Amino acid sequence: MSRVSDYPIQDIFLKRWSSRAFSQEPVTEDELMTIFDAARWAQNCYNNQPWRFVYARREGVMWQTFLNFLVPANREWAQHAQILIVVISQTFFDVNGKPSRTHSFDTGAACQNMSLQAASMGIVAHGMEGFDYDAVRRELAIPEIYTVEAMFAVGKRGDKSSLSPKLQEREIPSGRKPLANSIYECRDSLPIKFL
Amino acid sequence: MSRVSDYPIQDIFLKRWSSRAFSQEPVTEDELMTIFDAARWAQNCYNNQPWRFVYARREGVMWQTFLNFLVPANREWAQHAQILIVVISQTFFDVNGKPSRTHSFDTGAACQNMSLQAASMGIVAHGMEGFDYDAVRRELAIPEIYTVEAMFAVGKRGDKSSLSPKLQEREIPSGRKPLANSIYECRDSLPIKFL
Repeated sequence: MSRVSDYPIQDIFLKRWSSRAFSQEPVTEDELMTIFDAARWAQNCYNNQPWRFVYARREGVMWQTFLNFLVPANREWAQHAQILIVVISQTFFDVNGKPSRTHSFDTGAACQNMSLQAASMGIVAHGMEGFDYDAVRRELAIPEIYTVEAMFAVGKRGDKSSLSPKLQEREIPSGRKPLANSIYECRDSLPIKFL
Repeated sequence: MSRVSDYPIQDIFLKRWSSRAFSQEPVTEDELMTIFDAARWAQNCYNNQPWRFVYARREGVMWQTFLNFLVPANREWAQHAQILIVVISQTFFDVNGKPSRTHSFDTGAACQNMSLQAASMGIVAHGMEGFDYDAVRRELAIPEIYTVEAMFAVGKRGDKSSLSPKLQEREIPSGRKPLANSIYECRDSLPIKFL
């Protein structure tokens, strides 16, 4: 199944999808830095760049700790990734110390850049919220100035035959709701409504 | 000044920047739908697609209401945009009615797609948090199930000579902190630290 957009959008947006099959090929340091570099150029409020990426490589001593944060359903496939990332965000602005309303929103933007750049390189950066947020904060000693946002499993895209039969069935790009379900032009009519 | 990345990232990430000068050329319905379509394909938790876009066109009766949400510093340049968007996000999952941790994060991802697609078309989608969040909720009667996330001003990129001298000085692509300031490899050493 291939994705079809309603309008002529750039290929990169359709090419990125959160697959689960990883090859065993390592992700090089340059490749990893390239996807982090793309993240860096995301739009964000006051250019505060609140995103922070804390990561472990599978050959490192922290790998098992990171893997254990995940719920079993994610651990099943993410154990074959090369890198696990914990994404956190700084909750205030550097410029004035005031709380930021947009630190999660901005960090989501950065992670979208990361995953898009990865997809362009045959790399999967699969976001997850199925993990123990409290354990992450506790075991990585994340300071209170950061919110724990998400985790990502990163590796080269692999063949779905490496997955269990059940996961193989799910290894297809997801579709989307119709556009009209998420947009609403405010003319003279209120209240807002989405289809 | 042009942006330079440390690693060979896709051009689109550097090409997108939040400029303030708009041309007077209209944004067609197809162009607007194209940038919303790109937003739709963002990564998001459980494919819940929590983002919602409520917008007003400059020729519509709600334009002045939307413009008045903005702080004066944003209103000064955003008044020349063609479309103003209020971005909101649904705070729970459709699938089970449970609260979502990632609705803001996911919505930031969608808006990054929107702005990247726009940039590829010579359109600026400039995000803002300098507006009255409470007035948006009140005057647009935004239900409590949504969080107000951001506003965007959308228009064709214009020449900076149309801006005030003060804004002309700011009409250059922003830089970014060094990569090392936002990434940290967890080897055996804790606590985490960023440069």
